[in-house]
Amino acid sequence: MSLKDEIDGHTVLAGLLAHPAGHSMSPAMYNATFEKLGLNDAYLSFDVDAPELAHALQAMRSLHFLGGNLSMPNKQKAIPLLDKLSPAAKLIGAVNTIVNDHGVLTGHITDGTGFMQALSNDGLDIRGEKMTLAGAGGAGTAIAIQAALDGVREINIFNRRDASWQNAERNVAIINDQTQGHATLFALDDQPALKASISDSVIYVDATPAGMKPLETVSNVPDGDWFTPETIVFDTVYAPRETKLMQLAKEAGVNHVYNGINMLINQGAAAFHLWTGLQMPVDYIRETVFGEPAAVAHS
Amino acid sequence: MSLKDEIDGHTVLAGLLAHPAGHSMSPAMYNATFEKLGLNDAYLSFDVDAPELAHALQAMRSLHFLGGNLSMPNKQKAIPLLDKLSPAAKLIGAVNTIVNDHGVLTGHITDGTGFMQALSNDGLDIRGEKMTLAGAGGAGTAIAIQAALDGVREINIFNRRDASWQNAERNVAIINDQTQGHATLFALDDQPALKASISDSVIYVDATPAGMKPLETVSNVPDGDWFTPETIVFDTVYAPRETKLMQLAKEAGVNHVYNGINMLINQGAAAFHLWTGLQMPVDYIRETVFGEPAAVAHS
Repeated sequence: MSLKDEIDGHTVLAGLLAHPAGHSMSPAMYNATFEKLGLNDAYLSFDVDAPELAHALQAMRSLHFLGGNLSMPNKQKAIPLLDKLSPAAKLIGAVNTIVNDHGVLTGHITDGTGFMQALSNDGLDIRGEKMTLAGAGGAGTAIAIQAALDGVREINIFNRRDASWQNAERNVAIINDQTQGHATLFALDDQPALKASISDSVIYVDATPAGMKPLETVSNVPDGDWFTPETIVFDTVYAPRETKLMQLAKEAGVNHVYNGINMLINQGAAAFHLWTGLQMPVDYIRETVFGEPAAVAHS
Repeated sequence: MSLKDEIDGHTVLAGLLAHPAGHSMSPAMYNATFEKLGLNDAYLSFDVDAPELAHALQAMRSLHFLGGNLSMPNKQKAIPLLDKLSPAAKLIGAVNTIVNDHGVLTGHITDGTGFMQALSNDGLDIRGEKMTLAGAGGAGTAIAIQAALDGVREINIFNRRDASWQNAERNVAIINDQTQGHATLFALDDQPALKASISDSVIYVDATPAGMKPLETVSNVPDGDWFTPETIVFDTVYAPRETKLMQLAKEAGVNHVYNGINMLINQGAAAFHLWTGLQMPVDYIRETVFGEPAAVAHS
């Protein structure tokens, strides 16, 4: 099989609108899925900055796209430009997935569902439980609000008193006002509060840049003994594949340690399901596209 | 190599805007070329009817297309929607190829140059000579005007007195007023005039539906002895690959008998050259995409 054999006059397009777009793993992930399942679709990246977004969305309609994805800097800018929004996209205020239904574009956000799916793929159910979450950027916001929508009972959000503090306040207000969950905001530098919160949470999620270049040596949790072996530790960073936090957790004997690849693949699987109604072969994609055996998700 | 290996975040799109679009051979032809030359481009067909054309052209700009092609019903409708037109596109009044230069779309027409290139690939030079041409539809118009622009001296155009008669009159006027060539219009049912014109032409081109389903048994030239072995006989029909006209010509010992595949491939090669500055490997494409050995062009 090759490009000339796989694309014909009936091939339907999907694509990413982002700036920059060239480094994205999404074409590899979705094209491998289309190929594996024998679907006549192709996925490309388009370098689209925010001022060109309205035209690029119109292009998705005009060229009969299956759908697509948005990434930086378009995830929030798209909100007023789409025809419909999913309830989660409205609450989270961002869109990463677009479904095109005969020219009607609906915005969804699958980052949070990808996170929840990564856990449930391993039989882990955090509904009704308590979560400690660091960070209130894009990933942190999607995780917090989706978790609350899905039934996580109590979410303690820790954040730096920086530009994203307002986001964190907004996330707490939305969770408390518009979901069944309850959220409380803490300063990330309040180490006793962070330690106490983790000690009675089933999961600690780190959605901050800690662990990612140039902060490879940084972890918001200073010591693995803050966790029990049953605490789920989830870092949204995927480069490097194992962060300082993950090392500390593994050395302390934590059973379930995740990196961001799990969220990345499962948000993609959720997008793919919205477009096609089909399941992405996530273990195949993890191995062939991301070069990781399926078992690495929990050690 | 496969779809997932050949498309990445840097792949640039090209495409056909037509209605219907699904049956087109263009994706196969251009994707095989991209693959053979190692170019990171992909070509898709988009089903775009005339009312959606303006939006679809804007989509080419927004999604940074390399360029594209137009086919029915968009070749003439695009004229007022493009930013620039080549001199031939202006005279012919139709566009089959679009080059996107950072959002500036230029319309070209390569049908006529594809015809001329098919001849010159075989060392046949009809400049300064006389041509007899039947038909004044899209292909006939492009061939007539491009041939006159390229230096064919005398063109006798034969056409039915039907809806395309006005086109034929327009083509004659354009050739006489705006090129160095000279054209005369005749009724296609004037058989003595057709026979006399062919007898002192170096080439007979049939750009009518004769020979194509449901007119497989029809030829505007009733007898192969209207040709000499040196007359070039060119039928723009490519399905079937050998028309009634071509059979008659071959049986009469005509050395150079062409079907429309030659024009199709060479108009594509001309489009590809406009996009990339590179040469399409036409013999490779003829064999792998159209299943014809390179030598079939002239028997």
